[in-house]
Amino acid sequence: MKATQLHAPGDIRLDEVPDPAIKEATDAVVRVTHTCICGSDLWPYRGIAPREGVGRIGHEYVGVVEEVGSAVTTLKPGDRVVAPFAFGDGTCDYCAQGLWTSCRNGGYWGSDGVDGGQGERIRSPFADANLVRIPDEVGEDKMAAVLALSDVMGTGHHAALAAGVKPGDTVVVVGDGAVGLCGVLAAHRLGAERIIAMSRHASRQAVATKFGATDIVAERGKEATARVRELTSDHMADAVLECVGTAEAMTTAFKVARDGATVGYVGVPAQVEPIDIRPLFGRNVGLRGGVAPVRSYIPELMADVVSGRIDPSPVFDLELPLAEVAEGYRAMDERRAIKVLLRP
Amino acid sequence: MKATQLHAPGDIRLDEVPDPAIKEATDAVVRVTHTCICGSDLWPYRGIAPREGVGRIGHEYVGVVEEVGSAVTTLKPGDRVVAPFAFGDGTCDYCAQGLWTSCRNGGYWGSDGVDGGQGERIRSPFADANLVRIPDEVGEDKMAAVLALSDVMGTGHHAALAAGVKPGDTVVVVGDGAVGLCGVLAAHRLGAERIIAMSRHASRQAVATKFGATDIVAERGKEATARVRELTSDHMADAVLECVGTAEAMTTAFKVARDGATVGYVGVPAQVEPIDIRPLFGRNVGLRGGVAPVRSYIPELMADVVSGRIDPSPVFDLELPLAEVAEGYRAMDERRAIKVLLRP
Repeated sequence: MKATQLHAPGDIRLDEVPDPAIKEATDAVVRVTHTCICGSDLWPYRGIAPREGVGRIGHEYVGVVEEVGSAVTTLKPGDRVVAPFAFGDGTCDYCAQGLWTSCRNGGYWGSDGVDGGQGERIRSPFADANLVRIPDEVGEDKMAAVLALSDVMGTGHHAALAAGVKPGDTVVVVGDGAVGLCGVLAAHRLGAERIIAMSRHASRQAVATKFGATDIVAERGKEATARVRELTSDHMADAVLECVGTAEAMTTAFKVARDGATVGYVGVPAQVEPIDIRPLFGRNVGLRGGVAPVRSYIPELMADVVSGRIDPSPVFDLELPLAEVAEGYRAMDERRAIKVLLRP
Repeated sequence: MKATQLHAPGDIRLDEVPDPAIKEATDAVVRVTHTCICGSDLWPYRGIAPREGVGRIGHEYVGVVEEVGSAVTTLKPGDRVVAPFAFGDGTCDYCAQGLWTSCRNGGYWGSDGVDGGQGERIRSPFADANLVRIPDEVGEDKMAAVLALSDVMGTGHHAALAAGVKPGDTVVVVGDGAVGLCGVLAAHRLGAERIIAMSRHASRQAVATKFGATDIVAERGKEATARVRELTSDHMADAVLECVGTAEAMTTAFKVARDGATVGYVGVPAQVEPIDIRPLFGRNVGLRGGVAPVRSYIPELMADVVSGRIDPSPVFDLELPLAEVAEGYRAMDERRAIKVLLRP
């Protein structure tokens, strides 16, 4: 079968790889129908977070169960499923409390010995625990929205929860990538009254507005802080979602936070320099978040996708056949696309 | 009258200063009956946070109202009161939400133009808002406990709230100063089931145990983390209170935190080096806290002092006449005393 492999920074290929097979009784093999490229896939692609050797990549997928191990009880061949970007065993103390990303036996797709999602098929460990069945009433028109639940929508939701977004809040979202845009949607879903999206790209501003942003700030740095101060009449943000992962974004997030507010951060801090917390101390600005335990959020977000209450699919603004995965990476790297959906 | 002034690092004196007088209609003049020395007073005393020129110092006091301005309506001469270590106007949006330390018109005792607490008398701005009447039933035996509400008990409580301490939690408290010890008491009051106090001093360990600590860890650094891991069978802490303000303490706080936990920090970060947040990201460990808005907490903590449910007074292990304030600073600087109570 074919699957995407990163050979070296900038060198992404669709290679012939061995077909997956059940290894553990708790495994399933899934035929991937929809997958996509994540902003965090660009870190190794750009060589910022280099990898050793040639390896599978991709951690977001929707597909159809083809085969299940003997211990799998809730899934059967033919079931349509969506996977979270990190898998857990579903039974450890962390999974039990909903923090699947800290699972004592879990892992990440595309890491050593684990298949990546950007391929035709994938072996899924702990299938009962991780793979969430897609309700029969979900038609093809909603599959992109469901695919977004594998990472970006759940990650935006995690940022909003970490920031403590409450009904009536004024929220600032730093970052207009797919996660930032989903953060806007998540804040809107949680009842934020005013949502200020920081974005300087017209196409992303349009999606932010569609997702519930009430104001757009195109400025950066000090000018961005001043603009938020002006827009909010010095109230600043009751909650801030930091969805980039750079030191500049984090600094802006702290500055637009109202005293006592929390910055919910989900941008992978690949480049965040150490943070001077002293300015936070006097203002009681908190910092919470991290890698999102999206498995916990899929059921409630799926219900809202099914009902039509949320539709994160506009984050996918380019769809390509899997064969053109390299073009997909280039499009994201060059910011020609917000997020690329790939069809095997 | 006499009041304490810092002349230079290490040079603290009880000087003759002008008597305070009502300046604003919202002022009161208070005759100080109990005051004390704070760990944070040691920063300028040690020259770590140097000050310009000669200045008043001290931010914790209990006293008797002597005179009130024409706009003061809830207090009268003769009332016994306790003041929070930072004052607010009681009317701005931040005060209204309980974040008195972010008051748009507030300030700190001992700063420019504001009297310090370590003196015989003090002018108190926004008296109605800040000064909390001490109930008549509180006898002299409880005045030290009431004095602790001006800072350390409220600050320990803030750390516990910021860390999200819940009934049944396992809590680690980093720091065995008066604030750390009050953090133990606050965590106990909020229902923590297991409280691990980090302390290597027998006298402080004894107070921690009296305040509800179930375990004492005398180790530091990696050994401390290993000991917490052992004591908790790898569960680690559901909530961590960081009550020191050094980089080492903060690092330990992060390491003993269970994934998903929050570090509540209240140690004034005079020396905290910038923090590398990357290790926090993967574990979803949060950081919240800062300067404690103790004014918000005085009423509920006072009720518990009155009822005898809490008694933070054991943090005061040395009592001196105000005339011996210099010896008080030396005793704290040399860690001969946890906290020094001064009687004008």
